[in-house]
Amino acid sequence: MKILKNPDLKDWAMLAKRPSKPVAELDLLVDEVFDNVRKEGDKALYAYTEKFDKAKLKSLKIEAAELKNASKNISKKLKEAIDIAFVNISKFHTAQKEKVQKIETTSGVVCWRESRGIERVGIYIPGGSAPLFSTVLMLAIPAKISGCKEIILCTPPDKNGKINPTILYVANLVGITSVFSVGGIQAIGAMTFGTETIPAVSKIFGPGNQYVTAAKQRAQNFGVAIDMPAGPSEVLIIADKNADAEFVAADLLSQAEHGADSQVILLSTSTKLIEDTQTELKKQLNKLPRKAVAAEALKNSLAIEFKTENECMMFSNLYAPEHLILACENADELAKKVVNAGSVFIGKYACESAGDYASGTNHTLPTNGYARNYSGISVDSFVRKITFQKISKKGIQNIGPAIEEMAEAEQLFAHKNAVTVRLKKFKK
Amino acid sequence: MKILKNPDLKDWAMLAKRPSKPVAELDLLVDEVFDNVRKEGDKALYAYTEKFDKAKLKSLKIEAAELKNASKNISKKLKEAIDIAFVNISKFHTAQKEKVQKIETTSGVVCWRESRGIERVGIYIPGGSAPLFSTVLMLAIPAKISGCKEIILCTPPDKNGKINPTILYVANLVGITSVFSVGGIQAIGAMTFGTETIPAVSKIFGPGNQYVTAAKQRAQNFGVAIDMPAGPSEVLIIADKNADAEFVAADLLSQAEHGADSQVILLSTSTKLIEDTQTELKKQLNKLPRKAVAAEALKNSLAIEFKTENECMMFSNLYAPEHLILACENADELAKKVVNAGSVFIGKYACESAGDYASGTNHTLPTNGYARNYSGISVDSFVRKITFQKISKKGIQNIGPAIEEMAEAEQLFAHKNAVTVRLKKFKK
Repeated sequence: MKILKNPDLKDWAMLAKRPSKPVAELDLLVDEVFDNVRKEGDKALYAYTEKFDKAKLKSLKIEAAELKNASKNISKKLKEAIDIAFVNISKFHTAQKEKVQKIETTSGVVCWRESRGIERVGIYIPGGSAPLFSTVLMLAIPAKISGCKEIILCTPPDKNGKINPTILYVANLVGITSVFSVGGIQAIGAMTFGTETIPAVSKIFGPGNQYVTAAKQRAQNFGVAIDMPAGPSEVLIIADKNADAEFVAADLLSQAEHGADSQVILLSTSTKLIEDTQTELKKQLNKLPRKAVAAEALKNSLAIEFKTENECMMFSNLYAPEHLILACENADELAKKVVNAGSVFIGKYACESAGDYASGTNHTLPTNGYARNYSGISVDSFVRKITFQKISKKGIQNIGPAIEEMAEAEQLFAHKNAVTVRLKKFKK
Repeated sequence: MKILKNPDLKDWAMLAKRPSKPVAELDLLVDEVFDNVRKEGDKALYAYTEKFDKAKLKSLKIEAAELKNASKNISKKLKEAIDIAFVNISKFHTAQKEKVQKIETTSGVVCWRESRGIERVGIYIPGGSAPLFSTVLMLAIPAKISGCKEIILCTPPDKNGKINPTILYVANLVGITSVFSVGGIQAIGAMTFGTETIPAVSKIFGPGNQYVTAAKQRAQNFGVAIDMPAGPSEVLIIADKNADAEFVAADLLSQAEHGADSQVILLSTSTKLIEDTQTELKKQLNKLPRKAVAAEALKNSLAIEFKTENECMMFSNLYAPEHLILACENADELAKKVVNAGSVFIGKYACESAGDYASGTNHTLPTNGYARNYSGISVDSFVRKITFQKISKKGIQNIGPAIEEMAEAEQLFAHKNAVTVRLKKFKK
């Protein structure tokens, strides 16, 4: 980590910038794959899976029997852990369902909102060595609670054409409608245009590598919505002098192991806490299987000493971290001052891993400074909130003249007339 | 209007498609203007305003005195009408503020969400003959209620360098922080990058022509969020045999006058209602100042007779209209079956104009079928819902082992270790 002390205010904006990285020009590849998927359908999916994933598939759709059988390969202990996460995530997200509130804005004019689940949504889960089954929980549980009728999941097969059984187990547990063995740009293309086997969806969720990210971005041009813009994961910790350096270092590393491009930031008013954390980082890093990745991420990372906790919070709000850990005695007070963050962890026992897996909050959060303008995933992400209004004869008499006046001022006379014809009827 | 009777189910999808129109290739122009605004700042804004709006400005920012004086040019009657709209929109949107609900998902694990207004937002209001002051109300009121600290407004000047006084009056009334006299791609560029005078914002809201739409789309590549994708406005009316053809025609025309590319659709089980509406359309159309525009829009529009009201609703859900008027006696029942729509108007007195101006609901709604995946503007659009969690010693003891188990199964050992170091401390 780079260690800085009381940086000049004029340098804050520069320090709050994410390390820039070259953006691969993938547009041409995305266009090519999308075109083929649109024209050739399943045939293109089989061909790309053979080309990119080195897997020869017989079928794209995972059969119901295979989904059910996945359970056999999962240990009892892991199933119990997943059950705890499932219950907590369900409790927290169920509380996000909006109750209908009818508001009589003027006598005779009643307005309200009702949420409707997006009819068909798609979840993308990356392949690779680590099976991200926790993301299946984080996306499918709110989708189910929101009333989405059809939830499909695409994930790439390994070289043997297989999907990790834990992903299949969780997909079955949470009630995914169909699981498809396809990944990369071609999976996003399939969910955008639909093929013989894979239906087109209205919104695509889930993480992915640069190919998947570029494809999701492009999918938007074809009327599909996406969850949020993507970027490397990050954590910012504000720790006071009484924080436990061992915990702080462990939390920094839990973020750093995500990828070489992850960023971790430590802010403190205590020189000693920063020093102790560096010592702990070295100690813990050596024991990690993903040591090389975490060490690389630490190179991009900062520890900054500020004069006051208030300055720490000001910098945090400027940085807008995906995860913010407040390892301070007055964490409750500091939490009130949070303006820009994805998810906030209060106190020494609230580690980021808790929110990543099992406390109940969602782990799909805005990265890369997007916490300034985006929220993390919630039930809101899976519904449309439709407004309704019911207007009585009395109601239109009450607000009609105002509508006529405003419509005329905007020179929209047909808008005015829609009221006039109604008010006239009453005069007869 | 094209009139169809009981179309075959296989043709529904085609009928529910919006009339396709050539999309202008504006990317090069947007890139050029954005580049210049980024490099030259205000200087570029003055130059483009002279080039595109034919106005030579002395200042981009509208002075406080001018904002206050705008009131003098507004009639008492219009002010009173605006006041009614202001109160109703405020009532409806204030009710959307989410109350904090603390959920104890497991003993010792408390999770909740708090909303924070996006710190700085930008509103774009088009120029032209009709001053869209109602859109200022619809965007600035929820922004204020959401706690956005800074709300800026950009709108193009006329040839004399002036902004319509009603826009200035409403901007002042609702508490816009600053109004800038700049429009088009250059306004979106200014709000994206910031200039000497205009601050960069985190999210851009508001309607616009194809140039503004292309610029908003592009702004997203620079980390700015936008309200929603744009498209021509539309209404779909389901009317039963007892509906008032005069009202139905007036409502269709109030949408048709928006633009030649607007689409209006009438669904009914009654041949007579469809016929009577055609007669009424002809009668009313002739009296409209925007007759030519409305007549052009009607050419793209459909009246479809179905056998049952249920079929009408199925077609409506397939079409996913921005505005849906249920001019039926059993409108309440039908409303329950709405799955895809922006805003729903129930009964014969709930005309679209009511929601456009003064009932209290928002008029910035998803068009072009985007009601399938997007909601209209609400307080949600102006906040980030940040999740918080507080975990006690007991709490981490309760969920810690599940986190360890799941992290290990995902091969993320540093995630596991963040829990392990905490649990270990308790054992000592």
